Amino acid sequence: MITECPVPRPEKERILLGHGAGGRLTAELLEQTILPAFGGYEGPLEDASPLPGLGELVMTTDGFVVSPLFFPGGDIGSLAVHGTVNDLAMRGAEPIALSVALIVEEGLELERLEAVLRSLGKAAQEVGVPVVTGDTKVVGRGAADQVFITTTGIGKRLPGLSPSAARARPGDAVLLSGPIGLHGTAVLSTREGLGFEADIASDTRPLHRLVAALSPLGDRLHVLRDPTRGGLAAALNEIARDSAVAVVIDEGTVPVPEPVAAACDILGLDPLHVANEGCMVALVAPDAAETALAALRSFPEGSGAVRIGDALPADGHPGRVVMRTAVGARRVVDMPLGEQLPRIC
Amino acid sequence: MITECPVPRPEKERILLGHGAGGRLTAELLEQTILPAFGGYEGPLEDASPLPGLGELVMTTDGFVVSPLFFPGGDIGSLAVHGTVNDLAMRGAEPIALSVALIVEEGLELERLEAVLRSLGKAAQEVGVPVVTGDTKVVGRGAADQVFITTTGIGKRLPGLSPSAARARPGDAVLLSGPIGLHGTAVLSTREGLGFEADIASDTRPLHRLVAALSPLGDRLHVLRDPTRGGLAAALNEIARDSAVAVVIDEGTVPVPEPVAAACDILGLDPLHVANEGCMVALVAPDAAETALAALRSFPEGSGAVRIGDALPADGHPGRVVMRTAVGARRVVDMPLGEQLPRIC
Ligand SMILES: Nc1ncnc2c1ncn2[C@@H]1O[C@H](COP(=O)(O)OP(=O)(O)OP(=O)(O)O)[C@@H](O)[C@H]1O
Ligand SMILES: Nc1ncnc2c1ncn2[C@@H]1O[C@H](COP(=O)(O)OP(=O)(O)OP(=O)(O)O)[C@@H](O)[C@H]1O
Ligand SMILES: [Mg+2]
Ligand SMILES: [Mg+2]
Ligand SMILES: [Mg+2]
Ligand SMILES: [Mg+2]
Ligand SMILES: [Mg+2]
Ligand SMILES: [Mg+2]
Repeated sequence: MITECPVPRPEKERILLGHGAGGRLTAELLEQTILPAFGGYEGPLEDASPLPGLGELVMTTDGFVVSPLFFPGGDIGSLAVHGTVNDLAMRGAEPIALSVALIVEEGLELERLEAVLRSLGKAAQEVGVPVVTGDTKVVGRGAADQVFITTTGIGKRLPGLSPSAARARPGDAVLLSGPIGLHGTAVLSTREGLGFEADIASDTRPLHRLVAALSPLGDRLHVLRDPTRGGLAAALNEIARDSAVAVVIDEGTVPVPEPVAAACDILGLDPLHVANEGCMVALVAPDAAETALAALRSFPEGSGAVRIGDALPADGHPGRVVMRTAVGARRVVDMPLGEQLPRIC
Repeated sequence: MITECPVPRPEKERILLGHGAGGRLTAELLEQTILPAFGGYEGPLEDASPLPGLGELVMTTDGFVVSPLFFPGGDIGSLAVHGTVNDLAMRGAEPIALSVALIVEEGLELERLEAVLRSLGKAAQEVGVPVVTGDTKVVGRGAADQVFITTTGIGKRLPGLSPSAARARPGDAVLLSGPIGLHGTAVLSTREGLGFEADIASDTRPLHRLVAALSPLGDRLHVLRDPTRGGLAAALNEIARDSAVAVVIDEGTVPVPEPVAAACDILGLDPLHVANEGCMVALVAPDAAETALAALRSFPEGSGAVRIGDALPADGHPGRVVMRTAVGARRVVDMPLGEQLPRIC
């Protein structure tokens, strides 16, 4: 007689916070679930996508769920503009129009919503991009947390620019436009009441001027990426993967502000994993590195621009990112798993 | 001696469910709070907006928060495609590209998310519109309800078509492409367990083919609008307001399916206030009415097309919508206040 062995039913797989953190879990969800459902994966996952048949136009979207709504240096309203403007800029595009979809929790103080929207409007005006359409939904108390904002942007590529995560080449100089870790630690410090709020402010800001300043580089500007969720580590890993190169960076050149390092110490975080909202990575042909740095440094938002490393031939390890430490050791910079950082943007 | 009278501090104004229901409260929030924050109101509030400098392209966005996620006739995934495709179609545009931003609650079963996304992908494929970009955020348990989806669409106007809510003219025939009330009552009946689920299915479907079928009308197609939140009453009031005309409809011609009427009775709702996701209102020059009806009726999704009334000179009452009842009386069809119908789409 055969008796069935009572195999324990595997627990159903569920969405984890890390699926939204921009690291390995996010990439898995995208590749295994989201993209197949939408008809399959084509080419690199870029910050913004060309519109079919309208090659000079690009489109991007981001939902913003940051908690708290207001943090040192910014708020969900300005963030929703900067994030979307920056994803357009990372494809070499200037912003043409934004849409703004609000999901608001019943009971939210109207004043608070107004403050968020005024900040959003001001940020859009400063960039010179109009909000052309939107939507407003309200859900019952407890069905959302205050307000979520989804901004979608349409941009037009600057003539001659076509940066892509897949265009890095061995030999490229890896540039970073400013210090890392400020946005994520500002939000976390506020949320957790760590007391760094006086020393750390989010770097949230638009990067379209920096990109315009790089446009004389033309085809020698290979890659742009804003290291948002997943931080610098995720951005470099994505570039290395999509371009099938290796990337080597020098620890000593990566600008980590002292209070960011201190906050990361307390929080048990690697500054390379922390989200930024106002800096970008650029890979340029080696003979364009000095010109690019000078162009970036001519703006306040690029005054801290530095060269942090180089792209190298894959040498059997396409997609590998390595950091040379101060003492000359090398450590692999992995794609963060992405568990510890919910609702940073 | 003057003593200060202790005036009770007015309670802070808060967001109500009705602010998201597409009626008067939504219009107030838009006009008094949202649009001023974004730099002021310009022209009619249309289903989709032209992209500045790219007149043939239009953009629209909608957040979807429907509860439950699955309902007779559809689910949040297909709805998110149809709603956005239809707002493009209402400006005479065929869809070119969609973006999809997800906000997911921690703990959602992956299978459930997959089912939603597969339905979304299928609906997009059926319309022939690609999802070109997206975003995925996760918030903690209790900070959202399962999943919210914001879809943004870019469309290209069909040659010769430029329908607008502001283009109705006295004399126009008011057409309706099919029966009303199905979507809202299907969702409510499921949510409240009313037992109508066997008899009522949402009308959620794309309307781009119907609009393409009307394109031979060219400039004689004046207005298109999909009566989603706020129902037929809101759509007609918006058209009458934005075109400064009056609208008169005949009660006997408005198709209200029997089970919809029964469900509305139980729920205390006016079928004119209930959301639809698969029909549209068209105002056409009077000499085009028969051609338009024949074109609509040549498709299954327009098989129930009827003429329900006329646009008239404002006669001192611009924006007024009136219904002639069976017994010859006239009642004003007001803009719904919009309190009773949260999370219908
Ligand atoms: N948060 C917002 N920001 C800017 N414009 C908005 C916002 N919410 C709504 N609007 C504008 O108000 C108008 C009416 O929006 P509404 O969402 O009611 O239209 P709809 O999408 O056609 O209807 P539904 O959302 O019921 O499908 C549109 O022109 C829309 O662009
Ligand atoms: N729900 C989704 N549907 C379709 N594509 C998606 C979805 N979520 C993410 N993507 C795609 O995956 C890639 C990575 O998305 P991600 O949101 O991480 O980029 P990002 O917006 O530059 O970063 P961040 O959101 O941290 O600002 C993009 O190409 C994006 O279009
Ligand atoms: Mg990006
Ligand atoms: Mg982004
Ligand atoms: Mg809408
Ligand atoms: Mg509409
Ligand atoms: Mg809509
Ligand atoms: Mg994103």
